[in-house]
Amino acid sequence: MIQMLRFSDPGFEAAFAKIVARSETLPEGVEETVRTIIDDVRRRGDQALFELTARFDRLELTSGTVQVSEAEIDRACAAVSAVSHAALKLAAERIAAFHAKQKVETWISTTEEDVLLGQMVRPLDRVGIYVPGGKAAYPSSVLMNAVPAKVAGVPEVIMTVPTPDGVVNPHVLAAARLAGVDRIFRVGGAQAVAALAYGTESIPRVDKITGPGNIYVATAKKMVFGQVDIDMIAGPSEILVINDGSGDPAHIAADLLSQAEHDELASSILITTDEAFAGKVAAALESQLQALSRQTIARRSIEDFGAIVVAESLDDAIAFSNRIAPEHLELAVANPFEILPRIRHAGAIFMGHHTPEAAGDYLAGPNHTLPTGGTARFFSPLGVDDFIKKSSIVSFSRSGLERLGQEIIHIAELEGLEAHARSVSIRLKD
Amino acid sequence: MIQMLRFSDPGFEAAFAKIVARSETLPEGVEETVRTIIDDVRRRGDQALFELTARFDRLELTSGTVQVSEAEIDRACAAVSAVSHAALKLAAERIAAFHAKQKVETWISTTEEDVLLGQMVRPLDRVGIYVPGGKAAYPSSVLMNAVPAKVAGVPEVIMTVPTPDGVVNPHVLAAARLAGVDRIFRVGGAQAVAALAYGTESIPRVDKITGPGNIYVATAKKMVFGQVDIDMIAGPSEILVINDGSGDPAHIAADLLSQAEHDELASSILITTDEAFAGKVAAALESQLQALSRQTIARRSIEDFGAIVVAESLDDAIAFSNRIAPEHLELAVANPFEILPRIRHAGAIFMGHHTPEAAGDYLAGPNHTLPTGGTARFFSPLGVDDFIKKSSIVSFSRSGLERLGQEIIHIAELEGLEAHARSVSIRLKD
Repeated sequence: MIQMLRFSDPGFEAAFAKIVARSETLPEGVEETVRTIIDDVRRRGDQALFELTARFDRLELTSGTVQVSEAEIDRACAAVSAVSHAALKLAAERIAAFHAKQKVETWISTTEEDVLLGQMVRPLDRVGIYVPGGKAAYPSSVLMNAVPAKVAGVPEVIMTVPTPDGVVNPHVLAAARLAGVDRIFRVGGAQAVAALAYGTESIPRVDKITGPGNIYVATAKKMVFGQVDIDMIAGPSEILVINDGSGDPAHIAADLLSQAEHDELASSILITTDEAFAGKVAAALESQLQALSRQTIARRSIEDFGAIVVAESLDDAIAFSNRIAPEHLELAVANPFEILPRIRHAGAIFMGHHTPEAAGDYLAGPNHTLPTGGTARFFSPLGVDDFIKKSSIVSFSRSGLERLGQEIIHIAELEGLEAHARSVSIRLKD
Repeated sequence: MIQMLRFSDPGFEAAFAKIVARSETLPEGVEETVRTIIDDVRRRGDQALFELTARFDRLELTSGTVQVSEAEIDRACAAVSAVSHAALKLAAERIAAFHAKQKVETWISTTEEDVLLGQMVRPLDRVGIYVPGGKAAYPSSVLMNAVPAKVAGVPEVIMTVPTPDGVVNPHVLAAARLAGVDRIFRVGGAQAVAALAYGTESIPRVDKITGPGNIYVATAKKMVFGQVDIDMIAGPSEILVINDGSGDPAHIAADLLSQAEHDELASSILITTDEAFAGKVAAALESQLQALSRQTIARRSIEDFGAIVVAESLDDAIAFSNRIAPEHLELAVANPFEILPRIRHAGAIFMGHHTPEAAGDYLAGPNHTLPTGGTARFFSPLGVDDFIKKSSIVSFSRSGLERLGQEIIHIAELEGLEAHARSVSIRLKD
């Protein structure tokens, strides 16, 4: 059922191109719809926000009810089982511990006696976390977005989550409390993004919006970029497994399916140097698929965008991986650290036979928000960097300006910027 | 000529809103023109690129002449005076030294015996630097973009610069050589951005495009974002000077004009607690303007978007600055380090009376590419961070998976993702 390929196959490039090109195309009309919603919320604030929520989520809101109350969060937390709460708490703690290592400090350099240079690091003032509602309401997304913001020191993290027909996922609220989210608003869609970007009477304007969402949310985020910062626009998810014939084919099949069950557009690829191993993974995939509740989605994903590639060598497999720049990369080989230095591009790298991608999805510690669709060539996982910004510090003493002033004046004149030159020369004349 | 304001003026908010809203509006048709150019270069490669260059730059190119030859760069360097070369070299060295301090290393955490976590840092493979041609061909822009990329370790930095009618600025080529640029192509406009983003027969595809440009270049960068990464989209430039009555009014006037001479849309604002000082700056502005070659531009900028605000207190001045989030902030006060900790948002901060902004524009060391238009709330100066990307590393041993596996399985089941749970449980069964 899954396609088996070799680089030497005449159809290889075509098959590979189909997988790469699988991104969702923007359906007709989405941009106009989103533009209208953003303009409406920007112009009419809460009134537009509440009307749109009534229309899309069948929920009547007022300025008194748009924010989820502390009592409601208390009730949600009480409704979560002790074992679920403990698992989410462990995840929050491990995510916080990993991200704490990403923090960077303000520094100042005193190398020169007469010129001080530095870089000041500050958290953003206020961040908005978008959390999808309905079936894709994942408490892990709340943790992966809000915990790094809090670790970065963001004083105010606000969250929006749509609650169609008023239905709230208690695990999402419990995760928000564990992550230290400050305020939660029960709105979603492009209207929530617009409210976060421009502010309404009830929802304060934020500096950055992060978090996953459907095509309307993603389009809205793209449109408000510049007014606020946004995280990356995520495309469909993908996994690449590199294998050298070691390990258990059933484990690899399980990992491929864990990606495939997300989404019909997900892509799961194994590249192995062992043809017999390839065959066993294909067989295990088929038998594991039978027993899967999300079988229809997973099967579609595997059939359309899955592949097992048999490579001549590990070198070829690594080169292929660097060409794909996968979101998730499993090094399911005997000595994963031996090949790590040759991996140039990947969102997250899962080492060896005991590290299924799912470990990273929930609680290993690193973020599960990762660059997709080959953008690991230039994008990084979500992290503390996303929630801070830097300011340069320049401090010349009189002697510093005397020492370097002539060169500043010279370059300014070279560029024809006389007033620039004069701002230096006027200080040296006195 | 420059408007004088107080917060208590009834017209204050309106005057301030006019300054904030001064961004260039996209002229009718730019988006369609740029879209057409990008599609054309993407489809027809060099052929389209050369036709567009012939049309816009009146320059006939071939695959043999599109790249600037080493001999031509040699000749340009020879044409640059020794004193200019020394000034540019000093700038390149100081920029490299500052940016070297921004580098971060790959790390791995061995806190847990059975779970290794880390973050791998890699430079981007290939970066494209866009350099404007004509009057805005600034060698300092070449240095500020290319040097950080090389400091980050980018193996291949390529540069595009339009050469209308074949005219090249020798200082731009000399700066490129000093910065370590690997290849230079004589193309510009949206067609150069498209070539960098998608590649042509002559120009290789890059991973990120940085550098300033006109409205067509900026629009093209926005359109190819996602296909490649881009730096921020710069709006018109601005300076805010905070003053406490100390220092020389003529110096401050010179600094305000150094911003104003850039562009009619530039904004130069002084906020001072000393009304007499405010008057003296206004007078000095008028007299310095008379002697300025770019008087027409600077006067328009000062009249339309300049202001001197008299504040009741330094506290008020600081609050105003944090509201503006200025690109350039001068703390022209007696004790600038005393108020630094209260500055929340600024691209670059120039400390005290001997640090004109122009020092930072050329060779202090920090980057002159800074967030404009209030985006210092969430964007940072261009730097080494822009030319690297990170990959997370996750490595569980068998015992690590045994220790944490039940919680992973639990969260996966909470989220209804059965195959995720199974990828862990299947490994624990053996």
